[in-house]
Amino acid sequence: MNGKVYPSEDPGKYKSFIPLIDAYNEAKLKQIKEYDPEFYAKCVEIIPTAEELDASPISFMKYNKKLLSPMDFEIVTNYSMQELVAKQISKELTALSIINAYIKSAIISHLITNCAMQFLIPEALAKANYLDKFLSKNNGEVIGPLHGVPISIKEHMNYAGKQTCGSYVGCLDNIPRESAINIKILDKLGANFHIRTSQPQSLMWLDTANNIIGRTRNPLSTRMSPGGSSGGEGACVASHGSCIGFGGDIGGSIRVPAAFTNLFGFRPTTRIFSSLNNLGGGKGQETIIVSQGPLARSIEEIDFFMESFVNKGIPSNYDPSCLPLPWRTPVELPKKIKIGCLFDDNLVTPFPAISRGMKLVVEKLAENFELVDLKNYWYSESEMESIYTNAIACFTSDGNQTQYDMFEKSGEPILPLTSHYFQFGDNAGKPLSVYDVRMLAYERDNLRLDLYKKFFGRVEDGSLGLDFILAPSYVGPSETPGNSLYWGYTVLWNYVDFPSCVFPTGLFHETTTDVLPFSNGGPKLKNNQYEKMVWYGHNEDKINYDPKNYVGGPIALQLISRRFADEEVLEGVKKIVDILNIPRS
Amino acid sequence: MNGKVYPSEDPGKYKSFIPLIDAYNEAKLKQIKEYDPEFYAKCVEIIPTAEELDASPISFMKYNKKLLSPMDFEIVTNYSMQELVAKQISKELTALSIINAYIKSAIISHLITNCAMQFLIPEALAKANYLDKFLSKNNGEVIGPLHGVPISIKEHMNYAGKQTCGSYVGCLDNIPRESAINIKILDKLGANFHIRTSQPQSLMWLDTANNIIGRTRNPLSTRMSPGGSSGGEGACVASHGSCIGFGGDIGGSIRVPAAFTNLFGFRPTTRIFSSLNNLGGGKGQETIIVSQGPLARSIEEIDFFMESFVNKGIPSNYDPSCLPLPWRTPVELPKKIKIGCLFDDNLVTPFPAISRGMKLVVEKLAENFELVDLKNYWYSESEMESIYTNAIACFTSDGNQTQYDMFEKSGEPILPLTSHYFQFGDNAGKPLSVYDVRMLAYERDNLRLDLYKKFFGRVEDGSLGLDFILAPSYVGPSETPGNSLYWGYTVLWNYVDFPSCVFPTGLFHETTTDVLPFSNGGPKLKNNQYEKMVWYGHNEDKINYDPKNYVGGPIALQLISRRFADEEVLEGVKKIVDILNIPRS
Repeated sequence: MNGKVYPSEDPGKYKSFIPLIDAYNEAKLKQIKEYDPEFYAKCVEIIPTAEELDASPISFMKYNKKLLSPMDFEIVTNYSMQELVAKQISKELTALSIINAYIKSAIISHLITNCAMQFLIPEALAKANYLDKFLSKNNGEVIGPLHGVPISIKEHMNYAGKQTCGSYVGCLDNIPRESAINIKILDKLGANFHIRTSQPQSLMWLDTANNIIGRTRNPLSTRMSPGGSSGGEGACVASHGSCIGFGGDIGGSIRVPAAFTNLFGFRPTTRIFSSLNNLGGGKGQETIIVSQGPLARSIEEIDFFMESFVNKGIPSNYDPSCLPLPWRTPVELPKKIKIGCLFDDNLVTPFPAISRGMKLVVEKLAENFELVDLKNYWYSESEMESIYTNAIACFTSDGNQTQYDMFEKSGEPILPLTSHYFQFGDNAGKPLSVYDVRMLAYERDNLRLDLYKKFFGRVEDGSLGLDFILAPSYVGPSETPGNSLYWGYTVLWNYVDFPSCVFPTGLFHETTTDVLPFSNGGPKLKNNQYEKMVWYGHNEDKINYDPKNYVGGPIALQLISRRFADEEVLEGVKKIVDILNIPRS
Repeated sequence: MNGKVYPSEDPGKYKSFIPLIDAYNEAKLKQIKEYDPEFYAKCVEIIPTAEELDASPISFMKYNKKLLSPMDFEIVTNYSMQELVAKQISKELTALSIINAYIKSAIISHLITNCAMQFLIPEALAKANYLDKFLSKNNGEVIGPLHGVPISIKEHMNYAGKQTCGSYVGCLDNIPRESAINIKILDKLGANFHIRTSQPQSLMWLDTANNIIGRTRNPLSTRMSPGGSSGGEGACVASHGSCIGFGGDIGGSIRVPAAFTNLFGFRPTTRIFSSLNNLGGGKGQETIIVSQGPLARSIEEIDFFMESFVNKGIPSNYDPSCLPLPWRTPVELPKKIKIGCLFDDNLVTPFPAISRGMKLVVEKLAENFELVDLKNYWYSESEMESIYTNAIACFTSDGNQTQYDMFEKSGEPILPLTSHYFQFGDNAGKPLSVYDVRMLAYERDNLRLDLYKKFFGRVEDGSLGLDFILAPSYVGPSETPGNSLYWGYTVLWNYVDFPSCVFPTGLFHETTTDVLPFSNGGPKLKNNQYEKMVWYGHNEDKINYDPKNYVGGPIALQLISRRFADEEVLEGVKKIVDILNIPRS
């Protein structure tokens, strides 16, 4: 980013890892080719080159239709995970026919978006055969609620017997003996894993690129970013490379990819899923705890996934850090739902498309809900600056030593957004003292309580008594590569650990409409480093926003509620999606 | 302890706080005297002097009987909290008659054990009047399940409008505007607070003494320690100064006082109670999280308290960090209960009375339960040394800065067990790096998972499949003042956050039986610093154990289960207590 040399960087050592990287990518290519050489050749012929994809706002849609058989296209396009299971029970489909359709679709996804770290084709075919036999032997009884559902998984989750690198070059030789607990549970529930998807270097970007496979593209508009860190998941699910995706979110890493690729993305309250056995540079950091969660094309699939995982998988039987909470279903919302609308977090003004989207959605919801503009209730600019700076400091409080440990193994070059992550905020990557971190945790608890009491409280006076907060999920309608610099709209909810779900609004960026709304000299910027960073871009001191950059970018929003109101959040999104009339994508 | 001068100490500044200390204690004395001058005079006449109490193994019992009216004695001795509530409904007792009996009994408790930081006599009388009126106005309907139950509370919990110092001299001027969330909830459930009890300086001892009120005595044997840090709670409840006590436990602080005073003491899984609004030097420390919980004379009262608080109080409505888990009742245990028996933690050998107690209890349980000696399954001495050192390091990882912040306000002298706390273990009070603390949290999660899988696991192979672990709660049958040096038997369960309940065995130390069992030269000590510390005492290099020191000391044990099996732990204790035939004390 600024020519800085990091202590973990070592070009000489890194050179010795290049053959490992090459072998890793060649193995992937070989698996794709060998699966169906003819299909692969046709893909290569029809899909634009990497250079073209990087340069233009290309959508995956027509390639999918051209390259898949009508039946395969039907399977990957039109059937929800519940329907896939039902159609196996009714013998209309087999697990094998489903996984074959999805393997092909995932190959197309990968060739368009570069979303795969690794394919698991032989394993997925074997599992499909096993599931088909199981079903016929057991008179049509499924092995579990996810029987034969093709699920993509973020690659940093340990997978028994498979290279698991978390995009760290130095971890390419890491082969775990056991799979992560979440993977074990999904496996038992009948899920079929055919693709492990990409994540950025350090796992701490809202974008996706690394030194092993390069950048991942947004399937709706290939020159754009798919978000991150579960960017490969967003790219894969949005381009129908898997039926549902399983990622992780510690600062926006499920929700931002979902927002950028027009999906639903759910960050549940922490400790519902296991957070064990994932590779990463956040080992032992618990001021902000990671959540695992799903990305999908419909809210009903998110809900079904959660119910299946929690009530049938029972994660607390495997991981004593998981909570033994059931997934409550059905959940009732109040007759008159009260939603607080946060148009602007008072720290960084969203780009025009997002503000337009918020306004349009709020207009449509006004008939059905009681809406409150949070403008007069929200934290001030200086309060938000301190909250955001504190939240970010939680991650880098070890002076990034845990990350350096991971990078040192290979000496790999530090990419610009890793560099940004290492040093944004006031603390600039300096190690804090344990005392400082304790005060951050203390401040976090105070903020959590204050947010709860102010907005969601039920038992004490002076609360707005909201059911939900509706807010942007990111400043822009997707983002240009390398420019996802501000995490504020998502990381706040990690910091206080309130569940939130991103959903598509059906609206997209419009180049002629979403222009700067200020006639002379640009918008009045707030006087803080974060707003300038976003609106000026990396190194400039003038506004850098250009509506032409966001062609094809979806407008997504986020619904938030109090801790453990996870079921209510999904129910609220269902109601909003009904009103907005959003079809499964 | 070793003549070290701590950076927070300032004799000049401290001197200016002496009048505050005197005023604090005088106000307490005035309240006691004014409540019933005649009763007070009789107490002073009959109860031995502080010097006598400190020097001899005196029990509270006969003083209670002599000083209370037969009716008051009946109330404080024979009625459980459930009975107290029932007798108000049936009009046999009023809240006022109950609180008057308990105020008198608490005054005796205090004069014998020095367990009170502060009395709340006028407030308790007013609340009793309010409750009596409420009951008669509402045709015998109680305000809540704890209607009129006298509850003592550990003083460091914020109490609206009252000095709340947590035994920090510098906090004597602290008057919170709001009560701690747990206090608010108990108040709404009908509890009546008449006494706020003592805790040691720093709140981090398994003993109780501070610079404001001096030391608290064990009511079973006044020259002994009541344990700590909820030592005032143990002393008060055990001497019938309150019906039930409410304390906190981050390393043994509920369980050790319960063990030392022949009570039941329950440390629930964390986040059932709120941990907000308590004064202390652990602010923001979350590698080991504090639990709040009850101390009582019967396991049924512990259970009733938990059920009432959780199911009727619903703490997650007040504190978003609390879990919305219901208290499951009734809970069923398996037909054949499997208990792992841990006679020795492989780090510090218990004193003879405790080993004898474990053996006798195990013999009695063998008929009813499947018992497994954990000797061959437990962690080795070196593993335990590392586990214990890590656990202790979690507390002092900020180089004790948060504690110094609290002490600096007054410059008060650092007492020996604070000094011990500041520097025991290998890390000797040195500030760790944030990186180090992250690794401690990582190690903790690994240990938690390993303990769960090895002993309690149900879904994966290779587990012993235990329902419970039975273990000592402390190395000795109570302790001499200033010598509670080893926390290992309790802090382990805080470190991994497994619920555990201490219970009396009905057995007591016997001076002639519980002698060193080694004919020549003393026991074979393990070669580790912690065992030597306990068996040699502070500064000596020879064994210091003398059975004459432990006259009157009760033998308590501890039942532990996996995280969130809180209800099962209490049910297990009920079964054991039935077999051992332990009456309400």
